[in-house]
Amino acid sequence: MIEDKNPQRTPLSELGEFKLIEHLTSHFKITQKSTIKGIGDDAAVLNFEKQQIVVSTDLLVEGVHFDLSYAPLKHLGYKAVVVNLSDIYAMNATATQVTVSIAVSNRFPLEALEELYAGITTAAKIYNVDVVGGDTTSSTSGLIISVTAIGEVKKGNEVLRSGAKPNDLIVVTGDVGGAFMGLQVLEREKEVFKVNPNNQPDLSMYTYIIERQLKPEARKDIVELLKTLNVKPTSMIDVSDGISSEIIHLCKQSNVGADVYETKIPLDPQVISTCEEFNVDSTTIALNGGEDYELLMTISQDDFPKIKGNPNLTVIGYITEEDRGMHLVTRAEEKIPIIAKGWNALKNQA
Amino acid sequence: MIEDKNPQRTPLSELGEFKLIEHLTSHFKITQKSTIKGIGDDAAVLNFEKQQIVVSTDLLVEGVHFDLSYAPLKHLGYKAVVVNLSDIYAMNATATQVTVSIAVSNRFPLEALEELYAGITTAAKIYNVDVVGGDTTSSTSGLIISVTAIGEVKKGNEVLRSGAKPNDLIVVTGDVGGAFMGLQVLEREKEVFKVNPNNQPDLSMYTYIIERQLKPEARKDIVELLKTLNVKPTSMIDVSDGISSEIIHLCKQSNVGADVYETKIPLDPQVISTCEEFNVDSTTIALNGGEDYELLMTISQDDFPKIKGNPNLTVIGYITEEDRGMHLVTRAEEKIPIIAKGWNALKNQA
Repeated sequence: MIEDKNPQRTPLSELGEFKLIEHLTSHFKITQKSTIKGIGDDAAVLNFEKQQIVVSTDLLVEGVHFDLSYAPLKHLGYKAVVVNLSDIYAMNATATQVTVSIAVSNRFPLEALEELYAGITTAAKIYNVDVVGGDTTSSTSGLIISVTAIGEVKKGNEVLRSGAKPNDLIVVTGDVGGAFMGLQVLEREKEVFKVNPNNQPDLSMYTYIIERQLKPEARKDIVELLKTLNVKPTSMIDVSDGISSEIIHLCKQSNVGADVYETKIPLDPQVISTCEEFNVDSTTIALNGGEDYELLMTISQDDFPKIKGNPNLTVIGYITEEDRGMHLVTRAEEKIPIIAKGWNALKNQA
Repeated sequence: MIEDKNPQRTPLSELGEFKLIEHLTSHFKITQKSTIKGIGDDAAVLNFEKQQIVVSTDLLVEGVHFDLSYAPLKHLGYKAVVVNLSDIYAMNATATQVTVSIAVSNRFPLEALEELYAGITTAAKIYNVDVVGGDTTSSTSGLIISVTAIGEVKKGNEVLRSGAKPNDLIVVTGDVGGAFMGLQVLEREKEVFKVNPNNQPDLSMYTYIIERQLKPEARKDIVELLKTLNVKPTSMIDVSDGISSEIIHLCKQSNVGADVYETKIPLDPQVISTCEEFNVDSTTIALNGGEDYELLMTISQDDFPKIKGNPNLTVIGYITEEDRGMHLVTRAEEKIPIIAKGWNALKNQA
């Protein structure tokens, strides 16, 4: 590959704030019927007719949530939007708009911000949401991205964390633990790179889990699938901190307990092999590794025939009475209490 | 005054992310009919019936937008909410909800965040908005606050930047330049403090302008006043970067020109006296000093009798055809082109 050793670097100071915002946002197209006025006024104007709206917001901070030494800016822009949309889908809603604010130090040239916005634009296009506002400002150090996502849901169709009932089935979409193991691989390669910058790592064994970390997808398809199957979950949450943590959220807010079966937790073969390579327990990673952006839900047993055999949906346990507590039932049929480690805590240990 | 030399300092690490969020947000009360579900789920659920909604977002970064050596955290929390509400009022809308996200380094103890949230809570109470969501995370350096404000406006009542017509009157609320001069006083005192930390500054001459800087108010009252007077502005914007910059925004988006009369620009006596003391031209400050959070609007001449004599509203000029350009008509009746300096540029010069 012939590398461009002299990429263009336009200092942000050359443009000034207003021109910068105009340059970065002028190509955003409006596609949603509910967007009356997008970027370019004091506020966006939206009209949802009789629909309810849902709103969620997240802040991503360089050095805390991402490391630019291995996260390409385009992927980062994409991920910043996707992780917010994931919260909208976790309400059983349709995402319609986002606002994106960025604080950036002047070590970033214009071309870097263009990359970031290219990722934002791609995510907006793929997930069919309008970018309707934001703020671009300077920071004294590093990059900060704040996204607010807005969605719509018909009154009564929203799914909260608080509706789980004893005997409901606990269902998770896709597979879990991949994003966390992808991060482990990337961090290991970063250490190798520090020692030998000319080393070209072979990451072909880890493509799936690295993509889970750098360019996750939100489960828009699941909201559509549930509608098609005519299933309304009794509770739902997105898996951002690991399923242990999410199960605890659902149980606490629904005043119920849970039994989760270790053998049922869906793992990709790359997660299993990478866990073996790193000598870590795959169940621990699946329970506590974060950033999978799958959906964890509970459904009534009556709905089981509707989801049975669907490759996107895996039943991993069931809801119990609150006084039964929250447990993992291991391969050896032992019951271990589920505790909230969360992926941040895990990360600090790793 | 007896100072507490040993204030309580609880490290954030003692609580962990979930407990911290719960601790800081548990006291937020829901008062808006449109808030169906506030903090505590993946997203907030809102229902505006048939109203349109407006959305605006801002990012405040330590060292760029505020300096904690003179901005008390409580005021900062208050200001972070208010500056966003100002954008909602600039749409002629009623603010109803905010989300507040905070990234904070662990040099801040819990008590500091409690102060910040006390300011947020006070602003929410005074302006009658619900805090319905947010994110609390760590930062590698400094404090970052991201606020998204949501409001409602009946279809057709929204006022954009693009509706100004030739012969419309240009009207500004309150007075301008105060926040910028307040900042100059605070920055001067900071320099004095660096040299002599025991010096107790007498700031009683500057109370109004310092309050304009540290604890600005948004003009909720103006939206209500306009309704009472039965005046719908043809265009409106909030004064965050200085009236020069805002007039340029209105003119460009409305494809019109403007004549603004220097003698008509409303200045507080403290702004005039402080400008004299600092040996700066008060008109330059009024035009280019930012953060006043007043509203700048254009109204049809037919509406002039309705606003005439109202102490909150000052006519400072009128809209012209686009090819006439944008000018300041000076005391000497000279016409000087209005250029966009913006308060950031001014700040860098000062």
